[in-house]
Amino acid sequence: MTNKILSQINPSLQKLVPYEPGKPIEELAREYGFSPSQIIKLASNENPLGPSPLALNALTKYLRQIHLYPDGNGYYLKKALASHLDIGVENIVIGNGSNEIIELLFHVFAMSDEDEVLFSKYAFAVYKLMAELFGVRFKEVEDCAFNHDLKAILNAISPKTKLIFIANPNNPTGTRVPNEELYEFLDKVPGEVVVALDEAYIDFVADPPQTLSFVKQKENIVILRTFSKMYGLAGLRIGYGVASKSVCCFLERARQPFNTNSLAQLAARASLEDNQHKLSTLKITEEGKKRLEEAFCQLGLRFIPSSANFILVHVGDGDFIFHELLKKGIIIRPMKSYGLAEWIRITIGTADQLSRLLEELPMALYSLKNIKSK
Amino acid sequence: MTNKILSQINPSLQKLVPYEPGKPIEELAREYGFSPSQIIKLASNENPLGPSPLALNALTKYLRQIHLYPDGNGYYLKKALASHLDIGVENIVIGNGSNEIIELLFHVFAMSDEDEVLFSKYAFAVYKLMAELFGVRFKEVEDCAFNHDLKAILNAISPKTKLIFIANPNNPTGTRVPNEELYEFLDKVPGEVVVALDEAYIDFVADPPQTLSFVKQKENIVILRTFSKMYGLAGLRIGYGVASKSVCCFLERARQPFNTNSLAQLAARASLEDNQHKLSTLKITEEGKKRLEEAFCQLGLRFIPSSANFILVHVGDGDFIFHELLKKGIIIRPMKSYGLAEWIRITIGTADQLSRLLEELPMALYSLKNIKSK
Repeated sequence: MTNKILSQINPSLQKLVPYEPGKPIEELAREYGFSPSQIIKLASNENPLGPSPLALNALTKYLRQIHLYPDGNGYYLKKALASHLDIGVENIVIGNGSNEIIELLFHVFAMSDEDEVLFSKYAFAVYKLMAELFGVRFKEVEDCAFNHDLKAILNAISPKTKLIFIANPNNPTGTRVPNEELYEFLDKVPGEVVVALDEAYIDFVADPPQTLSFVKQKENIVILRTFSKMYGLAGLRIGYGVASKSVCCFLERARQPFNTNSLAQLAARASLEDNQHKLSTLKITEEGKKRLEEAFCQLGLRFIPSSANFILVHVGDGDFIFHELLKKGIIIRPMKSYGLAEWIRITIGTADQLSRLLEELPMALYSLKNIKSK
Repeated sequence: MTNKILSQINPSLQKLVPYEPGKPIEELAREYGFSPSQIIKLASNENPLGPSPLALNALTKYLRQIHLYPDGNGYYLKKALASHLDIGVENIVIGNGSNEIIELLFHVFAMSDEDEVLFSKYAFAVYKLMAELFGVRFKEVEDCAFNHDLKAILNAISPKTKLIFIANPNNPTGTRVPNEELYEFLDKVPGEVVVALDEAYIDFVADPPQTLSFVKQKENIVILRTFSKMYGLAGLRIGYGVASKSVCCFLERARQPFNTNSLAQLAARASLEDNQHKLSTLKITEEGKKRLEEAFCQLGLRFIPSSANFILVHVGDGDFIFHELLKKGIIIRPMKSYGLAEWIRITIGTADQLSRLLEELPMALYSLKNIKSK
């Protein structure tokens, strides 16, 4: 690269470490010569039941109209969400995945290197990625047994703190904070500091915190939700933020005119109506979680009890186990990029997928033991 | 809004004027009680033939897999584009519409209020929108008869200039710059200033400039293209940038891990293969353009000869004509937000759509005349 162009590049981008996504099925198929149908992916916390049939039906009917621009305001999706959540349409911002809402929060509240954002040591990677992209300082607050230490986060707030990200349940740990502790925390955060409550996995929680009622009272609370997990629409990119009308108004200004695609809006609307799909997903998640926990106990593996649709489990060398399982056509997530090199994260799949995993995992662990003892 | 939160908001957002999109069909249907099928939209330069049948076929087959995250790297689409354009995969960045590439360019090259970007007075609205979002200064260079004045743009370059946006053909004017003039311009722009050549409408040009060869020689040229116009995929949000490997590497770092959805990637790949769809689109565009031009001459309306799939035409009061046509179920684009209050922009639709437009337009013009003469 000539120095001329290099000298023009935003310095914060030079330091940025790109996100490591779960390995796509097609990529493993290419690299190892599998057919895609032979591969199971338990790496990205997708819904193993697939999308809702109601969503598929709505999409099929609409396909011929994809030459038309989407409704940039997402009128019908916002209306459906407002009714589903019992809030106003003016309290909703729709995003190209909830990841985009994270980015919009930086545009609105933190764009200067004088600003600082807070999140836990083991937090969703995109918070740090966006801080780096915007050249904003970040503080990673030490966890308490793989869970958010809300008191420590409160203590870490400084006059420079603009945003706090709390994922609940947390990714990649799967832990959640008790509702009462969360309420107390939200009451104590100063009103000029925005708390982004990332509820990507909240649909897997039986007694979720009543955070929507906080949005109605406080202007500094923003809830992030997604259709990528429970609703099985990760491929379409659709999520949303819930906040006060005035905060939403600025988040709206910071987005692209057509940030979400029309099929995503349509599928999300249809998915909200499918309670059966949600119940089936909860059932296989609970059953699979129990089964994995029992298997990990038998294998003598330490794991973090999870409130989400995945489990973080200690295997000693995450990268090694990841590669051993790849050879068998199984994609799980090594956690090195999260500072958890000894751990892997496994999405709770269907019974068949878990059977295949549990068939291959002992051999991978055995190979690791053999290598380490050499 | 409490002062506490208001004081935290990025000041550049307070001034930002949101984009005015073409009115969605569903919105007009709600407001005027039409059924959507009664409405024709000639407002957003969409392909009136719809998407390619090859794209529809590919989408239908893939729908059941939308629970899986997209391939963040867009491996197969990049490969198809590289072969289509005869460039390297490392020279391509895929975006959530080419609008996203515009945003990424700001992230990489212009994020400070010390930076300045240049574009023509009548330029695509998103350049200014992004400059406002990032709090970057912008200079709007006076046009020369509704076309880019490349010499004036060269003269406007200052040491603070980071980015120049040139849409060719231009939106909203439809004009293009002669190839030789463009080449000369690209040769004269200093190497540290990035030129973003927005070629959203280049597929409608019979003798397009050979800009790809400039990317191979110069690191400061970035070409923007979209699947929203010729390829009929506006609803899916997919576009791309072509640049040197090193510039692409930084544009990639500035994007979200899953910025484009899997259906968009798939449909774009399939659409590239459909030459018949492109030929049919070109045919109706040329026929429709001729027909509109003749009609405008008969109606005594001044218009700007267009190299794209739309025509800018002088009607005296764009908002009035817009509202008159809305009542008839026809959506065109008033141009007030572009500083062209006396003009409207009409997308070249199918023969049937143009017949309906040309049936209603004279009456709308007549009503305007009556009101003005009162």
